[in-house]
Amino acid sequence: MNKPIRVIQCGLGAIGRSAARLVLEKKSLRLVGAVDPLHAGRDLGEVLELNRKLGIRVSDKLPAIEADAVLHCTGSTFAGVYGQFAEIVGAGLHCVSSCEEALFPFYREPKLAAQLNRLCARHGVSVLGTGVNPGFVMDTLAAVSTAVCQRVDAVRVLRVVDAGTRREALQRKVGAGLPASEFCKLAKSLKIRHVGLSESLVFVAEAFGWDLDEVDETIAPVLAERTIRTKYLTVPKGSAAGVRQVATGWHGSRKVLELELQMYVGAKNPRDEIVVEGVPPMRVVVDGGTAGDLATPAILVNCLPRLMEAKPGLHTMLTIGLVRAIG
Amino acid sequence: MNKPIRVIQCGLGAIGRSAARLVLEKKSLRLVGAVDPLHAGRDLGEVLELNRKLGIRVSDKLPAIEADAVLHCTGSTFAGVYGQFAEIVGAGLHCVSSCEEALFPFYREPKLAAQLNRLCARHGVSVLGTGVNPGFVMDTLAAVSTAVCQRVDAVRVLRVVDAGTRREALQRKVGAGLPASEFCKLAKSLKIRHVGLSESLVFVAEAFGWDLDEVDETIAPVLAERTIRTKYLTVPKGSAAGVRQVATGWHGSRKVLELELQMYVGAKNPRDEIVVEGVPPMRVVVDGGTAGDLATPAILVNCLPRLMEAKPGLHTMLTIGLVRAIG
Repeated sequence: MNKPIRVIQCGLGAIGRSAARLVLEKKSLRLVGAVDPLHAGRDLGEVLELNRKLGIRVSDKLPAIEADAVLHCTGSTFAGVYGQFAEIVGAGLHCVSSCEEALFPFYREPKLAAQLNRLCARHGVSVLGTGVNPGFVMDTLAAVSTAVCQRVDAVRVLRVVDAGTRREALQRKVGAGLPASEFCKLAKSLKIRHVGLSESLVFVAEAFGWDLDEVDETIAPVLAERTIRTKYLTVPKGSAAGVRQVATGWHGSRKVLELELQMYVGAKNPRDEIVVEGVPPMRVVVDGGTAGDLATPAILVNCLPRLMEAKPGLHTMLTIGLVRAIG
Repeated sequence: MNKPIRVIQCGLGAIGRSAARLVLEKKSLRLVGAVDPLHAGRDLGEVLELNRKLGIRVSDKLPAIEADAVLHCTGSTFAGVYGQFAEIVGAGLHCVSSCEEALFPFYREPKLAAQLNRLCARHGVSVLGTGVNPGFVMDTLAAVSTAVCQRVDAVRVLRVVDAGTRREALQRKVGAGLPASEFCKLAKSLKIRHVGLSESLVFVAEAFGWDLDEVDETIAPVLAERTIRTKYLTVPKGSAAGVRQVATGWHGSRKVLELELQMYVGAKNPRDEIVVEGVPPMRVVVDGGTAGDLATPAILVNCLPRLMEAKPGLHTMLTIGLVRAIG
């Protein structure tokens, strides 16, 4: 058996804490450190609500300890976390990140991405952005579904999430219960939006070697057809039950990619559905949909050994070995 | 744009001919040679029924021409085609093969596999076995479906193919129309069987790092509940409509993997269905099932650039970058 991978958890928000807990369960991994200025000085076991001490003191910055890799869960924009990536790579550590824009950083930040790639090569380590969405259901799974296609004419992905079954923070995040006008105001100021939908779209285009002429993204409320009560809030009839966000990719006037995300209270038939128009056509469905709260820490952790096997550099889900559950 | 990959098609049976035709359609590939003793001396365009000459003369052995890779479609057993692999690798060519046992050659032929791996390293090239089944629906897709799982307790895969919609050769191959006793005799002598089901199973176990205590495989006829007529044959009530083949993997007395293949005339609800018992559980369905006749040449061709990007060696679908449709 290989030596366990020594992991530092960077960021102890909801996802970071779940990821850290999962690292503790894996034989192939060993949690050796944690970083989060909000919890600095506390024992990690306490922050993770384990009812036991772990003997790992949370630091306010990357600790100078023996380690192999960082699980990074601090922010959504690549430019915003670039400094952290540079520090991690500079310390000779691999990094798997939940940063949404890091799924395909060459899209919004090509210069910074190229710079990070060079830095990775120099230090002999790798960086990867992943997650469930972006990271799996609307991009990686869509791309691999075409492995058996002679030709792909167009791909449509639909993810439907019943926000009513999710935690309160998510229900609020999708605008459930807001008057439509308020929803639109918040959406316009980017306070309601799923980050990374365009990244997923551009990732899929890149997977096929497609050069899109145009990418656009729209966001609108899904209005409640009747009053809905969840455990946490009430959505009056006619107000926003949640969000419908659509990213579209074009070849001239032909729509070749469409990713549609519906997250609202009361959504029927939740699922992830990939439709490939091509030869042969494919229709791949995750029945019930992929459970984001459980799946996000899982894929972060599962990518660690795959990233470390790859050659040093800034990677994407296209360039590492097949990701699957690790032990 | 990169230079096209120069491909030699080795084996011009049904799959080999389809693969060669597909290579001709791809901008990123260039067909430069073909090998098949049965067609030696003929122009490849004629063998492919293209109504035009290609200026490529089919050879009876690997031609000494400038090329990058071989698409290999000649046989099902790894030991049986090992000599061909060694010759291809010795000529400095990469090789993607439809050989079923090559999906995971370490299972039945660990010594030969290790030997081929060393030969690949010495010559700086790579070999991969793939296909639709084995190669995708019951193994690669099953493994990647667990990328979002914190824990996997068991995986079941069911592939249901309505043989009545397929070519005559396949209907005969699954024993459709035979008396049950005749079917059992042919199955016992391995004349009716899908090659590679245990390879798929062991591949999935390897993906999770599982050390199975036992692997078994059963084969039985599916009996026609009523008389069925296809375009090619009649299946009398009570005789074999086709085959049900099941591979099972055990941890002690616990069934942790089960792959079930049903191929029979009149099968209802054809599909590929992956059920992961774990956290979160996953149920991934390819509606209608993956069309093998079209999909097999597709995945062979789509793996070529991914294999050539990987480091030299004997690869599996676990160790190359994410396979997707190429242009």
